[in-house]
Amino acid sequence: MAGNSRERGQSVASRLLRVLDAFSVARPELSLADISRTTGLPPATLYRLLRELTDHGAIQRTSTGRYAVGLRLWEIGSLAPAVSRLDEVAIPYMADLYEATHGTLHLAVPLGTEALCVAAISGHPPVQPALPTGARVPLESPGVGRVLLAYAPPDVLAEVFAGGGSPYRIRQELVEIRRRGVAVTSAGSRPFSAAAPLVGPQGAVLAAVSVAVRTFSDSPLLIRLVRNAALGISRELGTSTDVAVRSAASGSRR
Amino acid sequence: MAGNSRERGQSVASRLLRVLDAFSVARPELSLADISRTTGLPPATLYRLLRELTDHGAIQRTSTGRYAVGLRLWEIGSLAPAVSRLDEVAIPYMADLYEATHGTLHLAVPLGTEALCVAAISGHPPVQPALPTGARVPLESPGVGRVLLAYAPPDVLAEVFAGGGSPYRIRQELVEIRRRGVAVTSAGSRPFSAAAPLVGPQGAVLAAVSVAVRTFSDSPLLIRLVRNAALGISRELGTSTDVAVRSAASGSRR
Repeated sequence: MAGNSRERGQSVASRLLRVLDAFSVARPELSLADISRTTGLPPATLYRLLRELTDHGAIQRTSTGRYAVGLRLWEIGSLAPAVSRLDEVAIPYMADLYEATHGTLHLAVPLGTEALCVAAISGHPPVQPALPTGARVPLESPGVGRVLLAYAPPDVLAEVFAGGGSPYRIRQELVEIRRRGVAVTSAGSRPFSAAAPLVGPQGAVLAAVSVAVRTFSDSPLLIRLVRNAALGISRELGTSTDVAVRSAASGSRR
Repeated sequence: MAGNSRERGQSVASRLLRVLDAFSVARPELSLADISRTTGLPPATLYRLLRELTDHGAIQRTSTGRYAVGLRLWEIGSLAPAVSRLDEVAIPYMADLYEATHGTLHLAVPLGTEALCVAAISGHPPVQPALPTGARVPLESPGVGRVLLAYAPPDVLAEVFAGGGSPYRIRQELVEIRRRGVAVTSAGSRPFSAAAPLVGPQGAVLAAVSVAVRTFSDSPLLIRLVRNAALGISRELGTSTDVAVRSAASGSRR
């Protein structure tokens, strides 16, 4: 009886999580039929679950009757220490960096073999469209991805390179990124971008910050600006008494 | 049997939501005992539920063995249309406004009788500490709160003023805010702040933006800057084909 109840309990909790997992950057609004297809849950079961979720505010109905993530779930999510502490420390440095460069800035944390964008600042017209907050990019991509790849643990590197091909060139580049403490696109590329790692209290790379500029005649200065911002953020994260940052972020890397 | 299963289902879903609701800005990390006390769930039941939530990534363990909101839940929450579209449109204007003022900027949406801070930009040292993303302030508070109060629907106003007292003075102030399209602290106050409403496609006030500066010798200019930023954001929200913004935000106001 207890076993049965436990099994049921797990199944309902996992159903609820499956419903939340159905939403994505590409598909932020879904119909009942969409969610049913994605989760494999029958519409009747789903309808009851969605009603409970909308009563709570975790899910909201849109004006067209579809479902979307609700403000209350946004609010709960914003409490994640891996992001909230990082955001708090990094934003002032990013504001300065924006002012100095007028570029498109990203702040991202590693999540498996991807980089998750947790904040962005850009002007208008932007140098390059900023990634939406919550978007993921592969670790192989330039900017924040490439830096996080350079400092990724062996198991993540193995997974990224599992596709085969010759990773020799990129491995050389990762060595160079670690040596310089910055990842830059090649001198002539447009937009030109530079990205640097953010280091936590115990030396682990928790995140990365990047800036892309249309043209920057003085790229050594841009590199210095990004590295200085990254060092300032890292120093502040390092002196933090808040141990949640490193633990939560290192957990997320698994 | 179906009824029984449904009842169990609802209860497990609501338990899970109660667990998520236990976390707050004031208490972002909780022990098993803390969550048990807050939710009223027995530790054994709770432990199983938390294991499922941590397996999913919705909840993470901290280095001290406590529980916190996980990166995956942050990611799902970031999909809320009421915030994501607003953020995307507002950040470039806020970046400009930061550059022109070097103040502390907030972007907030109404949530019941409170304002929910969805983005902040500040320098360092900040003029005033920025509210953490996800923090709530009462609608009566100066800045984003007061502006949102000025445009709040009658039922929200009634609830805010339900505490009694004489709301005459504040009602006069709200009339003045609506007349000018901006809420300002009194001329001599430090920090001096100005806040303006962000209007959606159908004329509803969806959010507010504010800037607080240490001293601003030219307060009419500051007011003009904030209003211009707010008008720019509103215009862009208005021309949006994305109808999710208005519906999600108006839903959140209930």
